[in-house]
Amino acid sequence: MKATAIAHPNIALIKYWGKLNRKLNLPANSSLALTIQPLHTITTVEFSNNFSDYIIETEFKDSYAISRIISHLELIKKVALDKGLKVPKYAKVKSYNNFPMGTGLASSASGYAALTEAATSALGLNLTPKEKSIIASYGSGSASRSIFGGYVIRRRGESHSEQLVDENYFIINDFIVIVDRERKKIGSSKGMVLSRNSPLYKARLDASEKNFLKMRRAIIEKDFDTMGSLAEEDCFLMHAIMITTKPPLLYWSPSTLKIIKEVIKWREEGLRVYFTIDAGPNVHILCLPKDSNKVEKKLKELEEVKEIIKAYPGSGSRLLEEHLF
Amino acid sequence: MKATAIAHPNIALIKYWGKLNRKLNLPANSSLALTIQPLHTITTVEFSNNFSDYIIETEFKDSYAISRIISHLELIKKVALDKGLKVPKYAKVKSYNNFPMGTGLASSASGYAALTEAATSALGLNLTPKEKSIIASYGSGSASRSIFGGYVIRRRGESHSEQLVDENYFIINDFIVIVDRERKKIGSSKGMVLSRNSPLYKARLDASEKNFLKMRRAIIEKDFDTMGSLAEEDCFLMHAIMITTKPPLLYWSPSTLKIIKEVIKWREEGLRVYFTIDAGPNVHILCLPKDSNKVEKKLKELEEVKEIIKAYPGSGSRLLEEHLF
Repeated sequence: MKATAIAHPNIALIKYWGKLNRKLNLPANSSLALTIQPLHTITTVEFSNNFSDYIIETEFKDSYAISRIISHLELIKKVALDKGLKVPKYAKVKSYNNFPMGTGLASSASGYAALTEAATSALGLNLTPKEKSIIASYGSGSASRSIFGGYVIRRRGESHSEQLVDENYFIINDFIVIVDRERKKIGSSKGMVLSRNSPLYKARLDASEKNFLKMRRAIIEKDFDTMGSLAEEDCFLMHAIMITTKPPLLYWSPSTLKIIKEVIKWREEGLRVYFTIDAGPNVHILCLPKDSNKVEKKLKELEEVKEIIKAYPGSGSRLLEEHLF
Repeated sequence: MKATAIAHPNIALIKYWGKLNRKLNLPANSSLALTIQPLHTITTVEFSNNFSDYIIETEFKDSYAISRIISHLELIKKVALDKGLKVPKYAKVKSYNNFPMGTGLASSASGYAALTEAATSALGLNLTPKEKSIIASYGSGSASRSIFGGYVIRRRGESHSEQLVDENYFIINDFIVIVDRERKKIGSSKGMVLSRNSPLYKARLDASEKNFLKMRRAIIEKDFDTMGSLAEEDCFLMHAIMITTKPPLLYWSPSTLKIIKEVIKWREEGLRVYFTIDAGPNVHILCLPKDSNKVEKKLKELEEVKEIIKAYPGSGSRLLEEHLF
């Protein structure tokens, strides 16, 4: 009863920030994201009656992170039990990421997508992507999207995501610029709950819902400049909520702002380049593959840039043959 | 027909951002500001039939800045003509600031307050502060407040300001931290007009109106911590509108963000210190006089800090005996 899965994080072009229902983790606004390779989480889950407790071997060692993983496994066990499957009490989980966690790079997206994929398979559940997407959403809202590859949407109030177009439909590059590897003080889940106390919260939801429809169309039409402009707009809308939350969520670092200003300057100089930022200091810089060498060169010239990961549209979560233990 | 006046800028604790009426320069939300010394503008105005054109000697040499000054003088001439006074066609204006202009330090506030004070006096108008406040508001919304000393309010839709309490009622320090002396690309007047296109605009006006009432009370009660917290909240509310305006108004520089984060850290360590930021990159750091040595020392240790001006509650605009020419 052992399975291993891989999943990729995703970068939201229209961002989900705010929950309609906290327990069910239902989003208060529709989101649209791109699943991105080569970033990934690989997770092996083994259920066995030989274990006398859960054994969780992940990068995060704190009790909250571990308790969330155990809750997720318990949820999947319940789904299996309801289907009449045999379910051992405990499991061992081993997981690794090829990128830094907890810094706004959506490690919870790839993490819970891989965990869901592996654990449901280990228990012999044969679920549709939609069913896996629903289960993943309980672990992390954005994990619901990482079950799918390419451009993925999740509508307001829905617990599952769905693929808009696959990873080969419209290829762009996302340069992930790491300026800070520190783990953020207030994580996304808690931040989203607090977001309701921003006096701008409701107005932003309405604005993002409109941007969602425009972004959906821009992607279908492969209209890169509209896509990029909308991504920036929506990024500022989310961060406007963050800075007006009590306490304010100041996810940007000085380097974040420096890079934003550089990107705007490069665009004024004629380069087709846009940015977006998730709930962390790192900046995603979007461009077309034909401009990627130019963009990379410019990025490497900035002293604030600690590391650059060149990403591109990725596949949905899937099983691997080789296990981590 | 010559007069010289001095006026101080003011730092808004509840910020005015957005116009109800563009032509009359009426604010869409109530504001509350502190007039601050020792920053000042000194302006001499002479009306004379010996001049064959306007002679404007100010720091800003661009035609837009000069045409705004001339419009303001024309307005004051009209007021004088309506009262049956003799009015020469042209005037000479000379002005200087003891601080950098156009970087969010409210140079238009002290500038138009001093210009109004000097020009009305030069023409022999004997106006009440309320009348001068109305005239100053046409030049710059915040100039309407700088006619008064101490803590000054201007209500939504009103063209005049009024003093809440004078400069001796509640003494605090405002360390103005200059991180950038560059003039901003989009000035406040234009930015305010654009602000309406932010989808968060209306929600912010409502929030600021509530904060205005709370701030008014905090000042009357000399409750420094409530005052500081509200100032930060309102600062973030205004900047949330700025970053969600099209095009986004990114008035912060990387150093701005660095200083914000430091102030929050110092407060967590027990220092009673708060910040606010106007439409520019420079940061105002508020503290009680008894903590000012500590704050100044900490600020001087930051490499981002280019210059510090220690300010305190200032007086309203007034005439001076000595002229600049």
